[in-house]
Amino acid sequence: MVFKKITLIGTSSEGFEEATEDAIDRAEETLENLYWVEVVEQGVNVGGDDREYQTEVEVAFELED
Amino acid sequence: MVFKKITLIGTSSEGFEEATEDAIDRAEETLENLYWVEVVEQGVNVGGDDREYQTEVEVAFELED
Amino acid sequence: MVFKKITLIGTSSEGFEEATEDAIDRAEETLENLYWVEVVEQGVNVGGDDREYQTEVEVAFELED
Amino acid sequence: MVFKKITLIGTSSEGFEEATEDAIDRAEETLENLYWVEVVEQGVNVGGDDREYQTEVEVAFELED
Amino acid sequence: MVFKKITLIGTSSEGFEEATEDAIDRAEETLENLYWVEVVEQGVNVGGDDREYQTEVEVAFELED
Amino acid sequence: MVFKKITLIGTSSEGFEEATEDAIDRAEETLENLYWVEVVEQGVNVGGDDREYQTEVEVAFELED
Amino acid sequence: MVFKKITLIGTSSEGFEEATEDAIDRAEETLENLYWVEVVEQGVNVGGDDREYQTEVEVAFELED
Amino acid sequence: MVFKKITLIGTSSEGFEEATEDAIDRAEETLENLYWVEVVEQGVNVGGDDREYQTEVEVAFELED
Amino acid sequence: MVFKKITLIGTSSEGFEEATEDAIDRAEETLENLYWVEVVEQGVNVGGDDREYQTEVEVAFELED
Amino acid sequence: MVFKKITLIGTSSEGFEEATEDAIDRAEETLENLYWVEVVEQGVNVGGDDREYQTEVEVAFELED
Amino acid sequence: MVFKKITLIGTSSEGFEEATEDAIDRAEETLENLYWVEVVEQGVNVGGDDREYQTEVEVAFELED
Amino acid sequence: MVFKKITLIGTSSEGFEEATEDAIDRAEETLENLYWVEVVEQGVNVGGDDREYQTEVEVAFELED
Repeated sequence: MVFKKITLIGTSSEGFEEATEDAIDRAEETLENLYWVEVVEQGVNVGGDDREYQTEVEVAFELED
Repeated sequence: MVFKKITLIGTSSEGFEEATEDAIDRAEETLENLYWVEVVEQGVNVGGDDREYQTEVEVAFELED
Repeated sequence: MVFKKITLIGTSSEGFEEATEDAIDRAEETLENLYWVEVVEQGVNVGGDDREYQTEVEVAFELED
Repeated sequence: MVFKKITLIGTSSEGFEEATEDAIDRAEETLENLYWVEVVEQGVNVGGDDREYQTEVEVAFELED
Repeated sequence: MVFKKITLIGTSSEGFEEATEDAIDRAEETLENLYWVEVVEQGVNVGGDDREYQTEVEVAFELED
Repeated sequence: MVFKKITLIGTSSEGFEEATEDAIDRAEETLENLYWVEVVEQGVNVGGDDREYQTEVEVAFELED
Repeated sequence: MVFKKITLIGTSSEGFEEATEDAIDRAEETLENLYWVEVVEQGVNVGGDDREYQTEVEVAFELED
Repeated sequence: MVFKKITLIGTSSEGFEEATEDAIDRAEETLENLYWVEVVEQGVNVGGDDREYQTEVEVAFELED
Repeated sequence: MVFKKITLIGTSSEGFEEATEDAIDRAEETLENLYWVEVVEQGVNVGGDDREYQTEVEVAFELED
Repeated sequence: MVFKKITLIGTSSEGFEEATEDAIDRAEETLENLYWVEVVEQGVNVGGDDREYQTEVEVAFELED
Repeated sequence: MVFKKITLIGTSSEGFEEATEDAIDRAEETLENLYWVEVVEQGVNVGGDDREYQTEVEVAFELED
Repeated sequence: MVFKKITLIGTSSEGFEEATEDAIDRAEETLENLYWVEVVEQGVNVGGDDREYQTEVEVAFELED
């Protein structure tokens, strides 16, 4: 059994929790057998009109044989 | 005056904020003179049916003489 | 074009998201041309009657020529 | 010449060395021109009946032109 | 559900894998509901006649309600 | 909007700046909507006749819906 | 032979050296077979009338069989 | 004698060396008694038409009495 | 309530404790409502005739409304 | 009593434990009064026909008066 | 086969690339069988009339049997 | 001009400041052109009858041409 980890950055105008869910939702759409998600960075893009929350996560999933 | 630090991991199906409160609630039940709590890791267990949010915290409290 | 970064700690009795917004609100009152905000630490002051959430952020903004 | 790095987690009921080999074996099956492997974390899943050793590695390989 | 983490250092004259098992064995004798073990440092005491391998691990286990 | 990050190592016999450009050039050939590049390590392979500069970068790009 | 590590924060109005001794004194009162102490953080509480120096240390001691 | 450190991010379309100089130039215009500059991060904004190199530096300078 | 953090480097020919006090003394002269001081680096300038101890600290203080 | 630390990288076609021993063996041949060895990195050179395990260690030894 | 790592700081009035080369040139004059060079810090001494770029590198080389 | 860095651990029964001086004293006896000393770790050996303070430092000195 081997797992692979990829790094995604979810975004949201609401907050960090929604940005995290945004990234996990995307992972679930394209990957099977998700295993563990870890937050590695939280930032806010404040250069535009609205605040865009960003949560960078590492997603581990099991590779098929 | 000497403080001690312990490490707890709170969990919640709601989000990281509730998971943090879960850990602090537990600390308050069993310890007196809590002083400071610090978040050291945020992760999500996505291997089951629901997402389980986990917040690892370090809790500092004052030791009695 | 040169940016400067400063470090602020926002506080809230509600949670980390509100504490983050508290820090960004303050930055927007006194600085122009905000560019990026990064969370560097999350802690909770539990020594008083209520829990005080604290989010430490680094705020980058563009310096005027 | 450009290299790419991916992150894999090998597992074994024997120990960390076998878990590392598990991850490298998998990399060799699906990638060519492997270059360098670096251990980034070693853990043991002790929640089940047996201890499952896990070694997380970063694998660098050369991309084809 | 709340987990607690403690830090143990196992020792062995054989090697790091045995030192890791030494620490986990000890944890299993005195704690229930072990969850996850993470290696945080590996060292060798070479000041005596024999080499003493030491593996420092963090052990997470579920607290009873 | 979700971003993904990958890790590339560019190489050059000239220097670190050219090695960085080598990695970004490769990313632009195969990926769309590049967003941000971050240097994570700089090294020099000095085992051969010439010095080979290597710059390891993380490249963030926006995923298509 | 298994060691355990705990984290203490000693305090002093004199300075960091006395704060370190404060933490070690406390450890010696309640633990046997102390082995090694490591400084992990030094801070000063300057919110009150006097400066309170704080030294956070990790204390390793041998567990009895 | 007390020094203060501030964090600046210089930018350049040429490369990291020019971005570093951009930040130091700015510091020299507004501060006296510069002492030491340290690179803390190098990144490239690749979201626009051109690559914008960014070097984040910490600048230490002596405070006047 | 929002705090700001700045970075100062105190110096002394006596030792690190005096260098720390040098930095805090300076902060108290120019800032009100100091809250917390954290040591981030200790070094010694040994290039001259005497040893100059340097302690780099981060100083947090409350901003006025 | 003053100790010095040097950094060695041992190699082995067998595994990380043998690579660690390779480095310690070498240290013992040329140095006296070895005190402590600490693992700082584990990697595998997979560019050749065989896997070459490498363990980087820091070796502390007591200097003679 | 055992490698040793040493730490050098090259300097240049031109820039970081030249400072890196300065350190590698010195290593090649006095050591044989150089293997790998890694940049660990980049700074600029701005206390004098000219900017002095400094690149700190770790140099690994193979020890003779 | 090239500098070299070595790592020493000074010891003292008095405290960390004396342990630091112990290491610098030793460096000055055997090396010329010392430049900069940086504290990288502070620990206390508490396994014997007395507390032995240890300060690990990196010492940079200029190499002769």
